[in-house]
Amino acid sequence: MADKIFRVNMSDLSASVEEVPSGWMGLGGRGLTSTVVAAEVEPTCHPLGAGNKLVIAPGLLSGTQAANSGRLSCGAKSPLTGTIKEANSGGTSAQMLAKHGVKALIIEGLPQADKWYGLQVSAKGVTILEETELVGKGNYEVVEKLNGRLGEKCAVITIGPAGEMKLTAANISVKDPGSRLRSCGRGGLGAVLGAKRIKFIAIEATDAKVDIAKPEAFQQAGRAFAKALVDNPISQALGQYGTNVLVNIINEAGGLPTRNFTSGQFAGHESISGETMHDLIVERGGRPKHNCHPGCVINCSQIYPGKDKKYLTSGFEYESIWAMGADCCVDNLDHIAEADHLMDDLGLDTIETSVAFGVAMEAGVLSFGDGAGVCRMLREEIGRGTAIGRIIGCGAGSVGRAFGVTRVPVVKNQAIPAYDPRAIKGIGITYATSTQGADHTMGYTIATNILGVGGKLDPLSKEGQVELSRNLQIATAAIDSTGMCLFIAFAALDDPNCLPALIDMINARFGIALTADDVTNLGKTILKTERGFNLAAGFTSHDDRLPEFFRHEPIAPHNVVWDIPDAAIDSFWNF
Amino acid sequence: MADKIFRVNMSDLSASVEEVPSGWMGLGGRGLTSTVVAAEVEPTCHPLGAGNKLVIAPGLLSGTQAANSGRLSCGAKSPLTGTIKEANSGGTSAQMLAKHGVKALIIEGLPQADKWYGLQVSAKGVTILEETELVGKGNYEVVEKLNGRLGEKCAVITIGPAGEMKLTAANISVKDPGSRLRSCGRGGLGAVLGAKRIKFIAIEATDAKVDIAKPEAFQQAGRAFAKALVDNPISQALGQYGTNVLVNIINEAGGLPTRNFTSGQFAGHESISGETMHDLIVERGGRPKHNCHPGCVINCSQIYPGKDKKYLTSGFEYESIWAMGADCCVDNLDHIAEADHLMDDLGLDTIETSVAFGVAMEAGVLSFGDGAGVCRMLREEIGRGTAIGRIIGCGAGSVGRAFGVTRVPVVKNQAIPAYDPRAIKGIGITYATSTQGADHTMGYTIATNILGVGGKLDPLSKEGQVELSRNLQIATAAIDSTGMCLFIAFAALDDPNCLPALIDMINARFGIALTADDVTNLGKTILKTERGFNLAAGFTSHDDRLPEFFRHEPIAPHNVVWDIPDAAIDSFWNF
Repeated sequence: MADKIFRVNMSDLSASVEEVPSGWMGLGGRGLTSTVVAAEVEPTCHPLGAGNKLVIAPGLLSGTQAANSGRLSCGAKSPLTGTIKEANSGGTSAQMLAKHGVKALIIEGLPQADKWYGLQVSAKGVTILEETELVGKGNYEVVEKLNGRLGEKCAVITIGPAGEMKLTAANISVKDPGSRLRSCGRGGLGAVLGAKRIKFIAIEATDAKVDIAKPEAFQQAGRAFAKALVDNPISQALGQYGTNVLVNIINEAGGLPTRNFTSGQFAGHESISGETMHDLIVERGGRPKHNCHPGCVINCSQIYPGKDKKYLTSGFEYESIWAMGADCCVDNLDHIAEADHLMDDLGLDTIETSVAFGVAMEAGVLSFGDGAGVCRMLREEIGRGTAIGRIIGCGAGSVGRAFGVTRVPVVKNQAIPAYDPRAIKGIGITYATSTQGADHTMGYTIATNILGVGGKLDPLSKEGQVELSRNLQIATAAIDSTGMCLFIAFAALDDPNCLPALIDMINARFGIALTADDVTNLGKTILKTERGFNLAAGFTSHDDRLPEFFRHEPIAPHNVVWDIPDAAIDSFWNF
Repeated sequence: MADKIFRVNMSDLSASVEEVPSGWMGLGGRGLTSTVVAAEVEPTCHPLGAGNKLVIAPGLLSGTQAANSGRLSCGAKSPLTGTIKEANSGGTSAQMLAKHGVKALIIEGLPQADKWYGLQVSAKGVTILEETELVGKGNYEVVEKLNGRLGEKCAVITIGPAGEMKLTAANISVKDPGSRLRSCGRGGLGAVLGAKRIKFIAIEATDAKVDIAKPEAFQQAGRAFAKALVDNPISQALGQYGTNVLVNIINEAGGLPTRNFTSGQFAGHESISGETMHDLIVERGGRPKHNCHPGCVINCSQIYPGKDKKYLTSGFEYESIWAMGADCCVDNLDHIAEADHLMDDLGLDTIETSVAFGVAMEAGVLSFGDGAGVCRMLREEIGRGTAIGRIIGCGAGSVGRAFGVTRVPVVKNQAIPAYDPRAIKGIGITYATSTQGADHTMGYTIATNILGVGGKLDPLSKEGQVELSRNLQIATAAIDSTGMCLFIAFAALDDPNCLPALIDMINARFGIALTADDVTNLGKTILKTERGFNLAAGFTSHDDRLPEFFRHEPIAPHNVVWDIPDAAIDSFWNF
């Protein structure tokens, strides 16, 4: 069965299934969402208006047996940054969409009536149904109710109340194999779905299989690929402690932004570290290892129970724990977990929202360290759409503007995540030059700056950081197109068997003959397509800058400032 | 006595008096503030940070006997728009500063301590004093208390609670001859003074006179100039009905933006018109004619009493009445007057704040037409710095972002004022290309598009609008440098004696020999200086655009959209 483009027009509530244009054939995931957005969305349109489109695409290998290939990409013009945006997530939707033959689902237009809708997807196409029961409900309840309607195996893409309210920190959530939540977190894409008045997209369960052109070659490459992943020491550490293994590592490096980016170390780091979390999960009978999508062999997720030993949260990531922890000075992991649960349920990007709380704490809205206060505000303010809830729910830049705070850690209005660019300079290049605002996942230089993966590069030195970020951003754009989890990058950088096996799988899936150079060129093309959209939207190199305070305020313990010259930043695009 | 530059550094609480650099000698008002800001402020700095400077300058003719020469210019990088900004106002400060020999007062840095300050200016220099009593007080009380401290004749520049809270709709208020308030309204400059923790600038009264190089020539030109003003029919209409004479005129033209820019006519226009207002003022024993600064011969201001015949507001302008009236569908003039009083007292730009209320009404925060609700919110929400108060007090763009509204009438994040650009296309060019965000006063094409001053040009036609706006913007930049009220433009455009007399006065004041071409070149240079600052701050022609909805939503009664091509807009800068 050939893949198709599924298209929904909310203006006239119509749906269609179209052939895939030849130029889009070789694309998947981010490569496809960015190509479609660049081709079909007017770059200067209002992100919440009729002109924006939300594009949802599984990766090239999603739906196959390839390990770690279940990432789902969502793309649009971001209401948070105004740039092009792609956010990807685990969960079961990518694989289910791929099995239905959905190359991409493109959602356009705005409905005329003051009504909410749900979409139901199968191989036959998309059905648009008016929705009333689930409007205003949290994501956990949406998943539970849709399980009841369509069976436990259905896949679900959903927005919480934050997306309904069009808050620009709203994410798009994706049901995972345990009916819990994963998130296409960044860039406020939940608000785009909210503007289109779509509460959820349910994907019917299917046992269909995606076509594999050369099944034997695929199986052979798949085994080599999975072996490279499971043999990798970083994969193993991620499996043991989750991404939160990084708290102690980044704190030791002096790059753990603390108290709204005024220090690089957090006194309470031990209380919130991956090691502490692991022991607590074991003690409470939770699951320290867990997969976010079927076929993952790394298992960096976990089930975190509360004091009562009942489920509290899952997919409890380092960046979320850092943001609500060190950045807000909250050293109580249960408060952080509760906040994480609430943000997942409301459908809020944990990084954007927590960094916004850090700025709000600097403004005096609540005290640094007040984790219980954060949970109360999530429930009673953001959850209810009060004015302060909206200010915080629109992100760190929003809080800065409302309260006149000048120390606001954002690039292109998106919150800077868990690695201070003064102390880890490579990641600063990624924040500045990323086509999508500050985002560590766009070019994760921490690998080489801190973890010694793909070589070593002194995080405090100015030398080589642009090249490092450039190479990683190109590679990431390509990986994000395959449906692969970004964590395959550790093996890909250090194990010579990994990348060839990945390419062999793609070739065997489609009966083509990509080379490593082709993959690199794909990454370059994606970045340039995204950059082209942004330039047409009015962005310039002036937007590729970190906030002023990073140049003026040295950060402890290294007492360093952001000192990469603008011209060096701009040289990023020399490729 | 030669004029000097007075400089205050809030970082170390020092003040100095400096010689005027030769390049600044021939400049005053906006020409000087923009030149200083462009020379001394890093264009990419945070507007509320230590790098921004507030520059206050009387015009070239301020302090002389020249009619209508009492405008005060304030300039800085705007926290609302991010562009360079100049806002000017009547009141007594410009004349008093000029008499003290203050060419410009430059305020830089940020204080270290969590304290508030007041500045006291005399010919000797500036004294910086800690202030406690007036912190948190409204502008009316500040003026009253400073009158008590320094005598009724002192001049006062002040910010209200809005400026203290660094709200980006905060204005800078200037005491008028009756100890009431005039405003440097637009661009949020009150937040810049608030960030610098300066509650007020008091200027000691003086009887000193500014030097006139050629007194007789000055006197002769001054008489010709004043005659041109008083003979002009528009001046006379402004004197009779105030600027609010425009409500019926612009409504008739179909360009009175109504109900958050969804119609060009307001059913309640008669209730809020200048004619109705005039009769009400007379009936209640108010003053339909009033001057905002000594020496004004137009007297477009008025004293508007409430139902109880006591003072309610003054300087009650068309744009304020339109914004709270037609745009918010409030047809009760007393509610509008009360809101005007409250906004003046809180130190809020009436245009920005009222247009923000219009967007908030569209978002459902309160109902269209609820004037009493607006007054309550001004008092209880903005006045107290609640979250919804901050959202609205940061302007129309802020409300749009917080509530996900797509019909947000702003350019460069500044609210579009009282003339719909779809029905009056020349003013749309001004909104789009102004160096300072949407601002009718930057190039008031209404003169020619509607009032038939300086020729006639069909407001609905695309032809000639760019040239009209360009010529007016150049002339305005020059006029804004003289200390003259912009309303001299009507006489300047139609009376051949007016402009030569103005130039003769400048020449006689300084003993120089400017020509009309020199004045035009001054205007061009100012615009290019301002544009240069903006380009260095990261603005491009992409920012010179009206919001998307103006191109897609036709406005009644003409059912026209904004249809000037982008290339035509960009040709504005071909000079």
